[in-house]
Amino acid sequence: MAEIKKGYVRPLDLKTGRIDMGHGAGGKAMAQLIDEIFARAFANDYLAQGDDGAVLPAPEPGERLVMATDAHVVSPLFFPGGDIGCLSVHGTINDVAVMGARPLYLAASFILEEGFPLAELKRIVDSMAAASREARVPVVTGDTKVVEQGKGDGVFISTTAVGALPAGRSLSGANAQPGDVILVSGTLGDHGMAIMAQRESLAFDSEIASDTAALHGLIADLLAAVPSVRVLRDPTRGGLATTLNEIATQSGVGMTLDEKAIPVREQVDAACELLGLDPLYVANEGKLVVIVPAEAADAALAALRDHPLGREAARIGEVTIDPNCFVQIRTGFGGKRMVDWLSGEQLPRIC
Amino acid sequence: MAEIKKGYVRPLDLKTGRIDMGHGAGGKAMAQLIDEIFARAFANDYLAQGDDGAVLPAPEPGERLVMATDAHVVSPLFFPGGDIGCLSVHGTINDVAVMGARPLYLAASFILEEGFPLAELKRIVDSMAAASREARVPVVTGDTKVVEQGKGDGVFISTTAVGALPAGRSLSGANAQPGDVILVSGTLGDHGMAIMAQRESLAFDSEIASDTAALHGLIADLLAAVPSVRVLRDPTRGGLATTLNEIATQSGVGMTLDEKAIPVREQVDAACELLGLDPLYVANEGKLVVIVPAEAADAALAALRDHPLGREAARIGEVTIDPNCFVQIRTGFGGKRMVDWLSGEQLPRIC
Repeated sequence: MAEIKKGYVRPLDLKTGRIDMGHGAGGKAMAQLIDEIFARAFANDYLAQGDDGAVLPAPEPGERLVMATDAHVVSPLFFPGGDIGCLSVHGTINDVAVMGARPLYLAASFILEEGFPLAELKRIVDSMAAASREARVPVVTGDTKVVEQGKGDGVFISTTAVGALPAGRSLSGANAQPGDVILVSGTLGDHGMAIMAQRESLAFDSEIASDTAALHGLIADLLAAVPSVRVLRDPTRGGLATTLNEIATQSGVGMTLDEKAIPVREQVDAACELLGLDPLYVANEGKLVVIVPAEAADAALAALRDHPLGREAARIGEVTIDPNCFVQIRTGFGGKRMVDWLSGEQLPRIC
Repeated sequence: MAEIKKGYVRPLDLKTGRIDMGHGAGGKAMAQLIDEIFARAFANDYLAQGDDGAVLPAPEPGERLVMATDAHVVSPLFFPGGDIGCLSVHGTINDVAVMGARPLYLAASFILEEGFPLAELKRIVDSMAAASREARVPVVTGDTKVVEQGKGDGVFISTTAVGALPAGRSLSGANAQPGDVILVSGTLGDHGMAIMAQRESLAFDSEIASDTAALHGLIADLLAAVPSVRVLRDPTRGGLATTLNEIATQSGVGMTLDEKAIPVREQVDAACELLGLDPLYVANEGKLVVIVPAEAADAALAALRDHPLGREAARIGEVTIDPNCFVQIRTGFGGKRMVDWLSGEQLPRIC
């Protein structure tokens, strides 16, 4: 993505212009699109190198790399609390951050549909750029392709993040041990229900907003206070239920949750009931699952609550011995029920 | 992408099965798709970690990182000489390799269209895995999303590569100097015309095959023999003409090419004439543009020709002083004409 002065005949029409096939053909129209929308928004020295790949400082000696990638196909593209642009920055940063790594760089590739309004593209790219600046993780390289009308859906964004993992740090879904405590950093289901409420045109007294946020600041504070944290994971697609089942299987343990302890906003609960959904299976984009040794649970909870993104953190259950790796929940009535993997297609295109 | 044993009721139907929305929802169906198609094909220790991000050894001390990303939307998905799978591995490896870096790791994200046959997906993923193994660059992390029928086009693949750049090495499109010599590693236009011939159902005596290939081996040999190489670039979308215009602008130089010296296969030339295309603007996926100081040109040409992917390397022109950064070509009749940037939408969805 080079900011090259090529003397375009006229600037892009950012009010009424639309993507056409020429914007993906590799020639002058593409160069102009990249210059006037992408390079201008993401402006940084790495991107300004203008070569096929960006040359970047390596991690500190002794650090390892962490790499994560996500395709983003959320529909609608704009929703209360965010849009596909900031979501594509937050989601991939979080995948690197939950490994305990400092996110360093982002790469972004765009698949645009012919006819997509340039004004909407600019709004999305500007939102991405703002999220990237706020997170201090620059978009250092990118790519743009265009597909014919009816072969895409406005815009899809794939982002890849690279981070640096300090020596000696090891967080993994395989590290949970019986007796450990399970925390979440806040209310569950906000992102998924913000999308669903918009899709289904549900109106509530107060709007449900996505929780989309970059979690690396919260995670840095948590790990500084409690280095003994064993597992971090952001419960996105499939929600808390699926994330905990994944961890239970990876670690070869069981889990028991307290239904009453799981924080869910009133409107999210109401919207879930209306749509026949279980908030445990609804996607989050700015929440953290934390598994810590029992003796560190209070300190971890305090560290989470000390951060603006963790104010509503809660202790929701514990890790158990279970060769079947079942996740169970204690209901309000003193009983227990299974919390299985998400099956079927509950919430397509949620991220 | 965890290879997790979750006791699926039955294996995926790889003969007649199709992608459904559930394969992207984050639950059990997605886990099974990942296990039985992706994780099985890409099998490596990094991917097997099964976390949101892969933990990877960092480059050697003193090395920098290089990062590049590409979305792949080529249509048709299968073409003579390759398919979207191997193309998505080669293209992104090449973007890192032309910076002079050793490609280390690949991330891959897939956007699948509902209804896409699992058999075709498996064929594509297996081709990707074979290309990755042959190049010795593992796919260490990935993501899968599904969109509704009519909102995608079979499969789109975004790949991101990370490489290690040795200390002191600096290749960039900004490095060309007047007097330098311009080489190409082989015939031009093969990839683009393989795609176009298939789209237009052109039949030739001998089929035109894509040149899709990973170039890091060729580049390593070249740089070992001629460390003074100034610019490497793979002339993909927009072809040689666009790539040279980019370099000329980045370096603030002009270029003069010899029409007769530019290697083009006879069938590619014929197909271009039939379709009214200029091979200089047609995409390549396994070719290298090399700019070297004049005194190193012979050694560079010899090094290229010593490698199986550079047998037909040729010297095609030289870098000139030109404040307008024009690329010109000496025609067979002793005249000169301008080689401008690609304009318009000559070859959509070529990669």
